[in-house]
Amino acid sequence: MSQRGQFITFEGTEGVGKSTQLETAAQTLRTLGVEFIVTREPGGTPMAEAIRELLLAPRDEPVNDMTELLLMFAARAQHLHTRILPELEAGRWVLCDRFTDATFAYQGGGRGVPAERIALLENLVQGEVRPDRVILLDAPVETGMTRARHRGELDRFEREAVDFFQRIRDTYLERAAADPDRYQVVDAGRSLDEVTGDVTRRITELVAIA
Amino acid sequence: MSQRGQFITFEGTEGVGKSTQLETAAQTLRTLGVEFIVTREPGGTPMAEAIRELLLAPRDEPVNDMTELLLMFAARAQHLHTRILPELEAGRWVLCDRFTDATFAYQGGGRGVPAERIALLENLVQGEVRPDRVILLDAPVETGMTRARHRGELDRFEREAVDFFQRIRDTYLERAAADPDRYQVVDAGRSLDEVTGDVTRRITELVAIA
Repeated sequence: MSQRGQFITFEGTEGVGKSTQLETAAQTLRTLGVEFIVTREPGGTPMAEAIRELLLAPRDEPVNDMTELLLMFAARAQHLHTRILPELEAGRWVLCDRFTDATFAYQGGGRGVPAERIALLENLVQGEVRPDRVILLDAPVETGMTRARHRGELDRFEREAVDFFQRIRDTYLERAAADPDRYQVVDAGRSLDEVTGDVTRRITELVAIA
Repeated sequence: MSQRGQFITFEGTEGVGKSTQLETAAQTLRTLGVEFIVTREPGGTPMAEAIRELLLAPRDEPVNDMTELLLMFAARAQHLHTRILPELEAGRWVLCDRFTDATFAYQGGGRGVPAERIALLENLVQGEVRPDRVILLDAPVETGMTRARHRGELDRFEREAVDFFQRIRDTYLERAAADPDRYQVVDAGRSLDEVTGDVTRRITELVAIA
């Protein structure tokens, strides 16, 4: 008899260290003998990854905001129903790089799509399913942008201006403040050792209470 | 000062002659000196055509019904807002091979997605926009399937069983019966000359009253 796995998402603006801390969390679960998968959004299945490529490719044609939003949720429906939920039901934990909070933050806060429209699609696609915990890596926008630029060429989303990312950060923080049991805000402006230690401790606690 | 163009969609199950009759309508408008474009769904812009390719490609991964529905409406949002509406506002008529009626018929009637979910997305993406006229080419399913098979290899949708297409035809006819001012049901089981004559006459009437 397997207990349902925990669904943990990692969120934050560009360059806050999501990928690094997702690996920290994976290493912690490995050490503690918890079975898990690591995945990401948009993506996580071959079809959802194909939708991701459509979304991220720079293109001449201006992409309508509603088109972008529906593509995000199309990828999410595929990922959630054909991969995430079966894994959780089999007792494995799912560590996911971004999920619906990113849609509220990027398309909502960033591009100005009304939150009610996003919530409507969230309910349509997810029903009652929400992440069990959201690890929000938070740092001033300037810190993250500097790190992201050092990694190489910026994609379509990353090219947007700093005030766009400020609205995204604000939206993440508002959502975290409204549901403190679900969201764990990690100060990602500290040294790598400090952030890694913090994430390791939080994941260890989640395993202890799961 | 240009009058708003008319938005005419062409619907029907496989092999009823949509493409042929869309060309009949185009020829009629050309003869009458009406400016128009011909387009199709899913598709009609480079991005929407890329979404169409994702939808129609045979693939190993089973496609979730909600994924398919959201991809359809993502392509529609792009097509409607970046192409169809600007053309109509510029006074040109738009002849479109399939539109939202096809979603109600194929995903709803065919695959069993609840009509309320489709209506919710229709309102989200289209607001109040609906086709001015729907030319529904109607023929017994067996007639259409036989014609489609003669054209070559069947795609993922066409491989579905005949009862699937029967449910699609029924849904189309129910929608037409519920709104007889908007829908023009053309008996496509007759000879090509008869159907072509009928469509020519109907398009000529629409131009006369527009």
